[in-house]
Amino acid sequence: MINPYNIDLDKNIANYQPLTPISFLERAADVFPNHTAIIHGSLKQTYSNFYTRSKKLASALSKKNILRGHTVSTLLLNTPAMLEAHYGIPMCGAVIHAINTRLDAKAIAFQLDHADSKILIFDKELLSVINEILSLIKSNPILIQYNDNQCNYTDDDTHSDKEIIDYENFIETGDNDYQWLMPEDEWDAISVGYTSGTTGNPKGVVSHHRGAYLLAQGNALVASMNKHSVYLWTLPMFHCNGWCFPWTMSAIIGTHVCLRQVRAEAIWSAMQDNLVTHLCGAPIIMSVILSMENKEKFKLNEEINFFTAAAPPPESVLADMKQAGFNVTHLYGLTETYGPAVINEWHSDWNALDASSQAILKARQGVRYLPLEGLAVLDPKNMKTVPSDGKTIGEVMFRGNIVMKGYLKNKKANDEAFADGWFHSGDLAVLHEDGYIQLKDRSKDIIISGGENISSIEIEEVLSQHPLIISAAVVAIQDEKWGESPCAFIEIGPENQLTEQDALNWCKEKLARFKVPKKYIFESIPRTSTGKIQKYILRKRAVLIFSSKK
Amino acid sequence: MINPYNIDLDKNIANYQPLTPISFLERAADVFPNHTAIIHGSLKQTYSNFYTRSKKLASALSKKNILRGHTVSTLLLNTPAMLEAHYGIPMCGAVIHAINTRLDAKAIAFQLDHADSKILIFDKELLSVINEILSLIKSNPILIQYNDNQCNYTDDDTHSDKEIIDYENFIETGDNDYQWLMPEDEWDAISVGYTSGTTGNPKGVVSHHRGAYLLAQGNALVASMNKHSVYLWTLPMFHCNGWCFPWTMSAIIGTHVCLRQVRAEAIWSAMQDNLVTHLCGAPIIMSVILSMENKEKFKLNEEINFFTAAAPPPESVLADMKQAGFNVTHLYGLTETYGPAVINEWHSDWNALDASSQAILKARQGVRYLPLEGLAVLDPKNMKTVPSDGKTIGEVMFRGNIVMKGYLKNKKANDEAFADGWFHSGDLAVLHEDGYIQLKDRSKDIIISGGENISSIEIEEVLSQHPLIISAAVVAIQDEKWGESPCAFIEIGPENQLTEQDALNWCKEKLARFKVPKKYIFESIPRTSTGKIQKYILRKRAVLIFSSKK
Repeated sequence: MINPYNIDLDKNIANYQPLTPISFLERAADVFPNHTAIIHGSLKQTYSNFYTRSKKLASALSKKNILRGHTVSTLLLNTPAMLEAHYGIPMCGAVIHAINTRLDAKAIAFQLDHADSKILIFDKELLSVINEILSLIKSNPILIQYNDNQCNYTDDDTHSDKEIIDYENFIETGDNDYQWLMPEDEWDAISVGYTSGTTGNPKGVVSHHRGAYLLAQGNALVASMNKHSVYLWTLPMFHCNGWCFPWTMSAIIGTHVCLRQVRAEAIWSAMQDNLVTHLCGAPIIMSVILSMENKEKFKLNEEINFFTAAAPPPESVLADMKQAGFNVTHLYGLTETYGPAVINEWHSDWNALDASSQAILKARQGVRYLPLEGLAVLDPKNMKTVPSDGKTIGEVMFRGNIVMKGYLKNKKANDEAFADGWFHSGDLAVLHEDGYIQLKDRSKDIIISGGENISSIEIEEVLSQHPLIISAAVVAIQDEKWGESPCAFIEIGPENQLTEQDALNWCKEKLARFKVPKKYIFESIPRTSTGKIQKYILRKRAVLIFSSKK
Repeated sequence: MINPYNIDLDKNIANYQPLTPISFLERAADVFPNHTAIIHGSLKQTYSNFYTRSKKLASALSKKNILRGHTVSTLLLNTPAMLEAHYGIPMCGAVIHAINTRLDAKAIAFQLDHADSKILIFDKELLSVINEILSLIKSNPILIQYNDNQCNYTDDDTHSDKEIIDYENFIETGDNDYQWLMPEDEWDAISVGYTSGTTGNPKGVVSHHRGAYLLAQGNALVASMNKHSVYLWTLPMFHCNGWCFPWTMSAIIGTHVCLRQVRAEAIWSAMQDNLVTHLCGAPIIMSVILSMENKEKFKLNEEINFFTAAAPPPESVLADMKQAGFNVTHLYGLTETYGPAVINEWHSDWNALDASSQAILKARQGVRYLPLEGLAVLDPKNMKTVPSDGKTIGEVMFRGNIVMKGYLKNKKANDEAFADGWFHSGDLAVLHEDGYIQLKDRSKDIIISGGENISSIEIEEVLSQHPLIISAAVVAIQDEKWGESPCAFIEIGPENQLTEQDALNWCKEKLARFKVPKKYIFESIPRTSTGKIQKYILRKRAVLIFSSKK
């Protein structure tokens, strides 16, 4: 059959344009040139300035022979330069590679070489790391140093043998009226971001313009972000490109409030002075916020929306945040999904429940983000969905337009990640009756004891509820009888007293017998620079401890 | 150069899915199955029901051999069936053809034949027109009659010789668990809508899933529509698919409030009873709303957002609407742009201006909608942008993802419409210094007198400001000296007295000499079923009147 709707109705440049979040900034600058786009300390930058400076950055980059498909790296804090990089770099067709500033020189050097980075823009504060990096890398990026005039750098004598261009001087080499490049295809890469790589080499996650456009809009839609919302940067922008919020804000003509460091007083002052409406961050940020004394003296917006990910927000923190004037929403995602891809969509009738029931509901990761077409919990052996019983564990799988293009230069990893038409997250979860998912573990962190799957997260949650325990991490140890059994690492406060027997009794009271850890180790828990617990180190520790005890 | 970001990073079904607004409804039903999707009188339909009924409609259609690329037509009012049609029809791969219910049988028959419609779903109220249509059409669509149980039909004896299927019975033939069809490509057609065709045959504007997805989201973003907004259907859904709002509401898990007829009391009751947050319509709807007596007795939401298009909202109406609790936003678009593509983005500092300055700013059509990539006022001769002087007239041109796929079976019209890489709207406008556009006329309505372009709209606005004039329409008449000159048709109230000299004096006072109409005709002004003035009839009238006078 001939479909009449496909005849003489082809794409042309009048009715088809590649989706790109850069267009949001162009529009914001056209329509609201004088609206404040960026606040950083005493600095205010309008949308007109922001757009012009981004274009000049793009122009300056292209004058350094940066072409489509080249990588430009940043080692920057949450500053205006980092926001400019999110537009200026893709505006010349290049790919932004935002590096986690907390990584060591070796890890950074690996990324720069792997991404074949042509240019590295870094904050002056990180100059000492730069020299170490230079001694390690094979590639030879041009160095551009951002000297943040809102920062009092402690003057050390660090200098580099290599030529370093000042960021402002570099911007000045660019043309005001540079014609920025649209992507040739919306599938073109806009960014590469490396996974933290708790085992083996990190993988370079490649995102495209289409996905960045869609997630940027999705953020505004699921978060009910109105025109002129004000966003405080407590989430590092090097983290999945700040979950695409650098682009979201231009779509809604909002204001970015920058923040070099996450400190309670700075956060509260910024919220009060700029009438902040939204902010994001790991649960640690909520702890920092709540640690502020005399919170009452600050005048805030009616309600501030806080989006958290990485771990379920505990009941006491939720209650305290509510008291302090925040509405907390729980998100979940991965670098491979541009940041948040799952949201704990709240039902208004849940507000009638008591605090602990609400916390139980809020601990669940939730449902698919608006721009994600598919979210499932599947048995990876047969790719069948698990029953929605809140018990059966399967692997979280994603399908849709906010799933990465793939891993850079890693066909094998791509074939594995996209096997059977789903992106395999490696995260394990259950599916509740109402379709909400709840994470139980990473694939490699699950403990299989006597054929039963035991979620290390479930045990960690129980231990964390103990009033004297600050933090807990549970890993598998070999067990002659059961194959594996859980082993708990526990951090307690310096003045707290807790015995192995106390912890064991606590677990027995709250957990099914087969889930109760057999071993308890009281010591500090190693974490990555992004705050993730390094379980592979704990597993080695456990082996060491128990083999020496034998 | 080999671009490493294009190697082994291809699309697959895990990371690429066609964009379609149907996915919004699927998600809404999955996540908020019990939220009220549709209110129609005493009827309430949840998202779960809405989704299931849409799937059943799709299934029932496919059982009638409706395939991808087939046309399914509707002749429906703003009822739940019309909302179901917006999902159920594309869910089986078909194209929704929503017909203007105010058209005459001949115009409807033309559309049905041109679109080769396989099925026509109509409201029982329109049965008498159906019989007339059947006598005119060459095609043979299956007839499905929607019997709205919220409507007291005046029982006439109309019946048809042709078999008619009851809508509810038809739905019941569908399967609950029908697997709806994703578009094979997001460029696939989702709808066809016919232009009003003031001259010649109407053209069938074809829209695609990608554009519908993007404009549906764009509506929510530019209108700051929060989760669970409540939308009242004062805009006909047959008008550019209700500007894509049938799809927008599912994206934000909102509630549709249906309305068969636009009457003041019904609107006010619906707004009060359902806490309406948003509604749309031509300026006539504002007049209807304001015509309500004892408005004060109704308790409304804090602020209701009203989106208007088709004509600039006059100052007095804006003031009255504000007083009545509405925030009015002026939009502009065409069937060819899925509905609104231009928005009068409001600047908060404009609130400090006096009412008449605000009205002047609000009369401008504005700037591009978020999902529209390009909006320009160009000289069609050389495709150069006009100066931003608020005076020089050019043609409004569009470029981007919310521009139609093209006109159905009309290659010539497509070639003309998309010439030089822009969609030519046929509307004439000026560009203001701040980049806002303001419509001045349709291309064919502009009056060229002594080489000067005269906007008929400008003269009409001046005449409309006269306290005794209800409505005015200005067309060109041949003029021996100037080539053309303006001729005004004027409607006055039955008790009003106004002479040609009065009107002439009024215009002389307010207009440049060359713009003052030379002729004034006092009679009623012919309009299309959508309320547009039929200037081609007026031009003929003018010729007739003045040739007979010679």
